[in-house]
Amino acid sequence: MKRVLVVGGRGSLGGAILSFFKQKSGCWLASVGFQPTELVENNIILKNRDDFRAQAEECMEQCEQLRTDLQQESRFLDAVICVAGGWRGGNAASENFITGCDDVIKQSIWSSLISAQVSSKYLKPGGLLVLSGAAACCGPTPYMMGYGMAKAAVHQLTKSLAAEKSGLPEGANVACLLIGTLDTELNRKGMPKADFSKWTSLDYIADLLYRWTDGESSRVASGSLVELKTDGQSSLICS
Amino acid sequence: MKRVLVVGGRGSLGGAILSFFKQKSGCWLASVGFQPTELVENNIILKNRDDFRAQAEECMEQCEQLRTDLQQESRFLDAVICVAGGWRGGNAASENFITGCDDVIKQSIWSSLISAQVSSKYLKPGGLLVLSGAAACCGPTPYMMGYGMAKAAVHQLTKSLAAEKSGLPEGANVACLLIGTLDTELNRKGMPKADFSKWTSLDYIADLLYRWTDGESSRVASGSLVELKTDGQSSLICS
Repeated sequence: MKRVLVVGGRGSLGGAILSFFKQKSGCWLASVGFQPTELVENNIILKNRDDFRAQAEECMEQCEQLRTDLQQESRFLDAVICVAGGWRGGNAASENFITGCDDVIKQSIWSSLISAQVSSKYLKPGGLLVLSGAAACCGPTPYMMGYGMAKAAVHQLTKSLAAEKSGLPEGANVACLLIGTLDTELNRKGMPKADFSKWTSLDYIADLLYRWTDGESSRVASGSLVELKTDGQSSLICS
Repeated sequence: MKRVLVVGGRGSLGGAILSFFKQKSGCWLASVGFQPTELVENNIILKNRDDFRAQAEECMEQCEQLRTDLQQESRFLDAVICVAGGWRGGNAASENFITGCDDVIKQSIWSSLISAQVSSKYLKPGGLLVLSGAAACCGPTPYMMGYGMAKAAVHQLTKSLAAEKSGLPEGANVACLLIGTLDTELNRKGMPKADFSKWTSLDYIADLLYRWTDGESSRVASGSLVELKTDGQSSLICS
C-alpha cells in the first residue's frame, strides 16, 4: 500500500495525478485544497485562505485525523506531491502588482512550506516530497515579477530541504519540478496557434511521479530542480 | 537636494544610514516603518502588519502625500533604500517553522516588493533602489529555512528589477546588499567571543550607500548582488 498526499488535487495537474494513481492498485490517496475533489475519498479542506498560520494548522490537524483514522502510529505517507500554484504576470509598475504578488506568495510559497511541514511530521523515512517550480524563474522574470520571485523561493527551499538536518525523515528524496506549458484543453483553447508538441502532457508527469513513488531507484538526486523539456517527447534535465 | 526614502529606518542599520545622511548637506530624508524615528521629520507609518495589500496601499498613499507636500509634480525620489528585515532560524521540523516563515515573508519579501512599487512610481530616472539579501542564502540554508527562502526571493527580484521592462524608470540602478554580521552593540553583547574584525560596520554601509546616492559613477552594475566582505577592512564582491 502506497499512501500519497497531493497538495492541489483540484487543479488540472493534481487531478491528472490522482486519476493516474487511482488506476494503479494499492494506492491510498488524499488531496489538499480549498474545495474537495471527487477523485478521492480523503479530502483535506482548507478554509483559511488569507491566514498562513491558521491554514497550516488546519492542514496539520486534518493530517493528524487521517493518520488516526488509518490507525497508523506514526509516519504514514510515502509521498507528498505539491502541485498547487497559479500564474500571475506583470512588472513592478503594473496596477495589480501587489495583488498578484500576494496571490503567488499564497499559491506557491505557502503551499510549498505547508508541504514541507507535513513531510517533516508524516513522511516515512525514504519518502518522496515533490514541489513545483518553473525553469524561467532561474533567471530574471520582469514580465512576471511576483511569480518569478515566488518560484525562486521554492527552488531555494528545495535545496534546503535536501540538505542535512532539514527536518525531513532520513533518506527522504526532495525534487522540484520545473514545468513549462502543460498540454491541457484550456491552454490549447487559450493559445490555439502554439506548437503543442513543445507542451508537456499531464500523463507524462503523472507517470513520472508514479515511478518515483513506486521505486526509489528511478528517482533523481535529492535536491534536484527537474526541468521537464518537451519536443515531441518529454525528457528530464536536472540541476 | 537629494531625496532618500529608507524602508526600515527604525532598525539599527536604517538608523545608521539616516544619521550618516543627515550629516551631509542637501539631503531630504524619509523613513518607512511601523514606528516613527526621531531622526527624520518625514515618517511613513504602516499600521497594517498582517495585510500585504493594505500595507502597500497605506505606504503608497503616504508617499503621494509627501510628494504633494513637497509640491513636486512627478517622480521626486533619488533613492529608495530597503533595509527592513529580520532573522529567523529553524528547519522544517521546528515547532515555530510556519510562524518564522510567516515573519520573514512579511519582513523581507513584503518590504522589498513595496520598495519596488514605490520606486516604480516615485523614483527619478537614473535613481537608486537598494534591497537587502544575504550571501548564505545563495546556497541551501536548512538551519534557517524560511529566512533563506525569503532572501533567495529577494535576490531573484533584484535580477528582475534590473532587467528591461521591469517597470522602474529609465536608467534606474538596482542593487541587493548581501550583508553578513553587522558590528552592532547588540551583536557584540550576544556573541562576545566572536571575531569582531569579520563584522561589517554600519558606517561602512552608510558611506557606501551615500556614495551610490551621490554619484552614479561609484555604483555597481544594476542587478548586482553585492556581498560585503569584512576582514579588518570591508570590500565588495559582486555577482
